[in-house]
Amino acid sequence: MSRIYNFSAGPAMLPEAVLTQVQAEMLEYRGSGMSVTEMSHRGKDYLAIAGKAEADFRTLLNIPASYKVLFLQGGASSQFAMVPMNLLGERGQADYINTGSWSKKAIAEAKKFGKIQVAASTEASRFTVTPVQEALTLSPEAAYVHYTPNETIEGVEFPTLPETGAVPLVADMSSTLLSRPIEVSRYGLIYAGAQKNIGPAGLTLVIIREDLIGRAQPGTPAMFDYKIHADNDSMYNTPPTFAWYLAGLVFEWLIQGGGLAGMAEINQRKAAKLYAAIDHSGFYKNPVEIRSRSWMNVPFTLPDPALDEMFIKEAKAVGLTTLKGHRSVGGMRASIYNAMPEAGVDALIAFMADFQSRRG
Amino acid sequence: MSRIYNFSAGPAMLPEAVLTQVQAEMLEYRGSGMSVTEMSHRGKDYLAIAGKAEADFRTLLNIPASYKVLFLQGGASSQFAMVPMNLLGERGQADYINTGSWSKKAIAEAKKFGKIQVAASTEASRFTVTPVQEALTLSPEAAYVHYTPNETIEGVEFPTLPETGAVPLVADMSSTLLSRPIEVSRYGLIYAGAQKNIGPAGLTLVIIREDLIGRAQPGTPAMFDYKIHADNDSMYNTPPTFAWYLAGLVFEWLIQGGGLAGMAEINQRKAAKLYAAIDHSGFYKNPVEIRSRSWMNVPFTLPDPALDEMFIKEAKAVGLTTLKGHRSVGGMRASIYNAMPEAGVDALIAFMADFQSRRG
Repeated sequence: MSRIYNFSAGPAMLPEAVLTQVQAEMLEYRGSGMSVTEMSHRGKDYLAIAGKAEADFRTLLNIPASYKVLFLQGGASSQFAMVPMNLLGERGQADYINTGSWSKKAIAEAKKFGKIQVAASTEASRFTVTPVQEALTLSPEAAYVHYTPNETIEGVEFPTLPETGAVPLVADMSSTLLSRPIEVSRYGLIYAGAQKNIGPAGLTLVIIREDLIGRAQPGTPAMFDYKIHADNDSMYNTPPTFAWYLAGLVFEWLIQGGGLAGMAEINQRKAAKLYAAIDHSGFYKNPVEIRSRSWMNVPFTLPDPALDEMFIKEAKAVGLTTLKGHRSVGGMRASIYNAMPEAGVDALIAFMADFQSRRG
Repeated sequence: MSRIYNFSAGPAMLPEAVLTQVQAEMLEYRGSGMSVTEMSHRGKDYLAIAGKAEADFRTLLNIPASYKVLFLQGGASSQFAMVPMNLLGERGQADYINTGSWSKKAIAEAKKFGKIQVAASTEASRFTVTPVQEALTLSPEAAYVHYTPNETIEGVEFPTLPETGAVPLVADMSSTLLSRPIEVSRYGLIYAGAQKNIGPAGLTLVIIREDLIGRAQPGTPAMFDYKIHADNDSMYNTPPTFAWYLAGLVFEWLIQGGGLAGMAEINQRKAAKLYAAIDHSGFYKNPVEIRSRSWMNVPFTLPDPALDEMFIKEAKAVGLTTLKGHRSVGGMRASIYNAMPEAGVDALIAFMADFQSRRG
């Protein structure tokens, strides 16, 4: 077996220790006589798995008791509809901050369900910056403010939280949740597709302040109603049991590794050395303003797009894969989530220098 | 390791050969350097996995080219909303046949989106029969007719398809799809949660006739619009990649085993011998009329409910688990999907006789 460094933006690398444990338990989970994939979600064994996963997740993020945690399906794309369907309420309007491809998708979907105001947009700068607080046009009448702390495609990240006063802040943390500590009490609702830092695709985590539950618009499908999921401990219907279990193992791995403060330190170091290598190369370039550079997704270009294919091919030959940038941005993108070892970033930096020395 | 016979109604047993293969490939899929759980759904390796799974699924069910196959999330519970949101169209009304707990849920959800007529209900007989054709009050104005070929909780199954003329027939086949051959062209839409005969929880299969695509109500979330999923080959957003892969291995297992005709023969034999054992025991009882007995879910009662707990405990001690019936029905339930070996049914029958001899 030879595992490689996979810089995919998601689904993405998982900790090898977790995969090894999944492998060991694949045919029989700890004396239960069956695989986790075969367990009734209502059975004692599975309820213990699910409960421990939630408890560990709460521990990692220090989630206050006044917040519910939901283990759902459908990805952030489903949240793009669920958030307005559940939160617009009688106010019927919300503010959205547009900082990249995923913000735009969230805005387009939300417009189906109410009056959506764009409180700021950085599209004119090709999404290479984030708006400062003064640039936000926020309405006190908004039911909530939605933003995307990290844009996976553009690699642009808010260095600080927008201040929204009494209006609940909603964050699509798909590509940052669990990469560092956060202060949950500053948010009304946080959601994240699992397939970056949390676990396999097919699981979506929602952290929601309890007072925001129970306001769904008439005609909201049961499966899109937070209250139904909250009232049923995320088991209104059969949840994605295996993905939930695997996410639980990732939570254990994070706790055993010292929690999110330590993870943040490593992630920041990984990103800092990669940006330094890019900036000092005189060859590679990252277009994002320094204060808004993502710790998780590092896009970079080569001086000539004609070199791109060669770069990808040669990188793959030395075990560095999935480096092609999103077609809307071009160039390369290295996604360096929690499970990407620092050695993987070091290997990428070494390869980049080598490639430059041969092709530069 | 000692794997047991797990009679869970779902999530349910998976073929051991499939789990063994998943285990072998868990850390590295066939020289790719990564686990399937880590693969980008847009990458070459994963697209090959996804494409082969769909092709094998089409082969197994002999699906005409005029039908799309969708690999979705959200379970049958999401389909309860998606079907009316997408299919009611200008007619705005549909007929539903009520034959058990899952029919009832589908009806309750559909009522949010249009005029729903119950074309027949067997609730008065406690869902122990299915309606004959003459008992159906079908409207030619209905946009579709919805029915549940097999009710997982009550263990009641339609022996033949309802005739609906020109009105498209929609079937919730969660607990029967792939258990036998079907004639897909007789349906407008078929859906099934994976966690019975198909794969792990978190995946939902939809087979939809192309002319029924593209009629979603205004305000339908993108993730609930069949057209969006069809136009994007089920990759509008990140699909549940691991569940899709595992389902693909189940499809291969079925093809290698000779396809659905052979599987139907085994399933029918498994069910027949279990019903025979119940009927001839003078101790156990199944309440369902003979013609409507499920091949997949076999509920049965003991003469005294006070024996239930003892039965479950002693069965577990000999490796027969998850036999407790649904609380709405009581007693026991043995779910005997494709992956339950005939030897498991034989073991259950032997245990039942033994229990009766000691406690009867």
